[in-house]
Amino acid sequence: MSNKEEIEKLIKEQGDLVRKLKAAKESKEKVAEEVAKLLQLKAQLNGGEESQNANQKFTLKTPKGTRDYSPEQMAIRSSVLDKIISVFKRHGAVTIDTPIFELKEVLTGKYGEDSKLIYDLKDQGGEILSLRYDLTVPFARFLAMNKISNIKRYHIAKVYRRDNPSISRGRYREFYQCDFDIAGVYDEMIPDAECVRVVYEILSTLNLGSFVIKLNHRKLLDGMFEACGVPAESFRSICSAVDKLDKSPWEEVRKEMVDEKGLSGEVADKIGEYVRLNGKIELVEKLLQDEHLIKSKSAVEGLEAMKTVLKYCEIYGTSDMISFDLSLARGLDYYTGIIYEAVLLGESGKGDDVAVGSVAGGGRYDNLVGMFDPKNKQVPCVGVSIGVERIFAVLESKLSANKSKLRTTEVQVYVASAQKNLFEQRMLLCKELWDQGFKVEHSYKKNPKLLAQLQYCEEQLIPLVIILGESEIQKGVVKLRNVNNREEVEVARNELGIELHKRLENYKANEAL
Amino acid sequence: MSNKEEIEKLIKEQGDLVRKLKAAKESKEKVAEEVAKLLQLKAQLNGGEESQNANQKFTLKTPKGTRDYSPEQMAIRSSVLDKIISVFKRHGAVTIDTPIFELKEVLTGKYGEDSKLIYDLKDQGGEILSLRYDLTVPFARFLAMNKISNIKRYHIAKVYRRDNPSISRGRYREFYQCDFDIAGVYDEMIPDAECVRVVYEILSTLNLGSFVIKLNHRKLLDGMFEACGVPAESFRSICSAVDKLDKSPWEEVRKEMVDEKGLSGEVADKIGEYVRLNGKIELVEKLLQDEHLIKSKSAVEGLEAMKTVLKYCEIYGTSDMISFDLSLARGLDYYTGIIYEAVLLGESGKGDDVAVGSVAGGGRYDNLVGMFDPKNKQVPCVGVSIGVERIFAVLESKLSANKSKLRTTEVQVYVASAQKNLFEQRMLLCKELWDQGFKVEHSYKKNPKLLAQLQYCEEQLIPLVIILGESEIQKGVVKLRNVNNREEVEVARNELGIELHKRLENYKANEAL
Repeated sequence: MSNKEEIEKLIKEQGDLVRKLKAAKESKEKVAEEVAKLLQLKAQLNGGEESQNANQKFTLKTPKGTRDYSPEQMAIRSSVLDKIISVFKRHGAVTIDTPIFELKEVLTGKYGEDSKLIYDLKDQGGEILSLRYDLTVPFARFLAMNKISNIKRYHIAKVYRRDNPSISRGRYREFYQCDFDIAGVYDEMIPDAECVRVVYEILSTLNLGSFVIKLNHRKLLDGMFEACGVPAESFRSICSAVDKLDKSPWEEVRKEMVDEKGLSGEVADKIGEYVRLNGKIELVEKLLQDEHLIKSKSAVEGLEAMKTVLKYCEIYGTSDMISFDLSLARGLDYYTGIIYEAVLLGESGKGDDVAVGSVAGGGRYDNLVGMFDPKNKQVPCVGVSIGVERIFAVLESKLSANKSKLRTTEVQVYVASAQKNLFEQRMLLCKELWDQGFKVEHSYKKNPKLLAQLQYCEEQLIPLVIILGESEIQKGVVKLRNVNNREEVEVARNELGIELHKRLENYKANEAL
Repeated sequence: MSNKEEIEKLIKEQGDLVRKLKAAKESKEKVAEEVAKLLQLKAQLNGGEESQNANQKFTLKTPKGTRDYSPEQMAIRSSVLDKIISVFKRHGAVTIDTPIFELKEVLTGKYGEDSKLIYDLKDQGGEILSLRYDLTVPFARFLAMNKISNIKRYHIAKVYRRDNPSISRGRYREFYQCDFDIAGVYDEMIPDAECVRVVYEILSTLNLGSFVIKLNHRKLLDGMFEACGVPAESFRSICSAVDKLDKSPWEEVRKEMVDEKGLSGEVADKIGEYVRLNGKIELVEKLLQDEHLIKSKSAVEGLEAMKTVLKYCEIYGTSDMISFDLSLARGLDYYTGIIYEAVLLGESGKGDDVAVGSVAGGGRYDNLVGMFDPKNKQVPCVGVSIGVERIFAVLESKLSANKSKLRTTEVQVYVASAQKNLFEQRMLLCKELWDQGFKVEHSYKKNPKLLAQLQYCEEQLIPLVIILGESEIQKGVVKLRNVNNREEVEVARNELGIELHKRLENYKANEAL
């Protein structure tokens, strides 16, 4: 007897034992113990590698803060991304991809306080690596490494942050970013205004309801801090305090400025006066008359730049959605010029579970690429990141509120059989239809019930079904059924392709998306 | 003087010093030292965070075995993936996504000897994680965790292996996998034959030249080993030796079997007789007469299954490309039934740098999902993985041999200006065309030279350019230029959209792809 036969014999015996124990209603523990032995034997038969594992004990889950995307979620995701990509392409962007991890040194010193959220890889010998934290730093590394001084690119990919996940608020440790950036030395505010236009087109095309795009300028912020008496070395830390104004009330932010960041109450209050201002071009004009602000060269430069960009936004047809907002600060250190953020307005928000906020943001960062260049050569950049995870969440919640059933496949025709032993006929017809490019499915069972096949089509929202029967095959015809209204007609086999094309011409898989 | 002004003053002084040193042709070290101080001051002005980093010393590179994808590579990649996805959709597949990392335990014991190639994440407190090694194990985990017993899905995503990279042979540590799998309890070989059909459609549609799809069956391999006298516990390790036959000559494989894996020379030689056989259905019939083989139940089951699948392949129109090949073994442990592998035939291979080999492979794995289920509930699966990285490499090499210039954007119309100070007019026209959905670019400079604008269009293969001039604006017309033949006509501004649609109707960005 070969080794294999021996193992098979043991498996048979052990199987008999398990069945006996079960029949005798032995204790669960006892049965489980013998089942475990049985599984180990089976695993041994399969080569032994997995024997330790066959009776695994760990909880089946995805890592903390991550999730699988179901077919329904993927259908929403690809509908959203297709629309976004078509806007990027309308503006002439190329796309690139970079590795999911970078040398740790590439990320070091780019994210300020948030560096602690970077995922590191284990040192398994060789280079020290970290998962990318965003797409902007890898983009800057890409430009410096390849000595590219002009590019307009989009990049849609996952990034990683060891943050405290909040699934209900849509905050994950692994999530998609979706970035559009314009790099190169150009005339002031022309690419910047186009980035704002890109945000405008995307939010309009996605039909998410009304929105506002807030604009501000880092030079104006710095000038404002200067005018209020903030010490230069505290500009960035006060800036990140201001950034919290979209989530926290002024009193809390003031407390942080005074208690944690050492500002005097008087200075904080001066800042408080400015950051409550928002408006349009007339606010720029007003601030250009502000006796404190205009003492700061930086503030005046920022205001002049705002004037220019607001004029361009007028030309680009986006100004109705724009608010010049002095409370907008953006968290990241690397911005050097204009900054912007798009916020959905929750008009349809009553009874809506998803907390909607910022869905896009970005700005100008003229010094980041230079940090990677050995000669510190700068490549000025401006860009925007679309908050696609928030957008997915908003759409998922809308669809579930509508109780819309989403199609997750694009199958156009199902080939069914009405009698037994027609599966080779079904396969042949599928082959003919695949050859003609139709999206076609049939049952993987030899003799499925007709009712089960028709039910499947209704559940899956497949629009057409072809029903094969002996008599039809002999006559050279098929029965073609409209799943929606259940009407059936006979179609000659050699005219089937034309008939299907005709019926599918105006069919769209998901009206809801 | 504010802190900021102080720093600015220091920057100015330090800048003057650097310029003096350079003018005096001081030593490089001395200059570099003072430049470093200057950069630190500048960084301080920008908030101080990055000061340590401003003068970075590390080499700019992507991690070992990884690469960036350029816009040209991305254009090839998305053209290939679009075609592959359309085949998957033609067969009714949904798509899913899973996290890039899994609990380490999920991957443990699934990859045999190759487990050492798994990338681990650093233990930063919390769960112990590893980067996914393939898409199959995460798929099995997904099925077990979500208790899914029927699904047909594709998944295109990156996987990670700490292998010795060989860039010239297209072996990377980060690479795309592109998988199609059918899970569920169905009748024998029906989904299996469809997977083979999917491979056939993909390789046909990609126009890669002629190919062969090798088929074999794990039960037949096991039966063959049994018939030759291999001990049962060595089946899998002998199987992975056989798997090397596509790269190594029989003599080397025999040596591994005898010297490393302890077979007798006689047993190895018996295996050698079988593994040189390949053919079609007649070989199955011949082997069903083989007196040694038919003593093994497993061998007979495997041969009967081969007979069935070859018949279905005949119906599905794929049998011309199929070879039943006893040397096909597939490296992975988890296969339990049919296995297959598609190989490109290098007919056009003279002078071609890319070594072409296997471009798709897969098989049936009925026990993998059960390894994740607490009750060991099995979900039988069959699937195929398309070797997209090899396919990208083949196409890149073809295109560079043809010297084809690839378009990396889809811009249809460029808006140029013939005189100075027309940039707001250009912006306005771009806005009108974007509103109508055209893909439009213009220069980000206020007053670009006309020649530079036209050259850009020729380099970028943009088909149409609109040239704005004062006199045309006054007449309410634009000049429309065909970039290819340089013909220009005047078009009334209010008929521009219709004219553009007409001219772009049959335009395709990349004929080569």
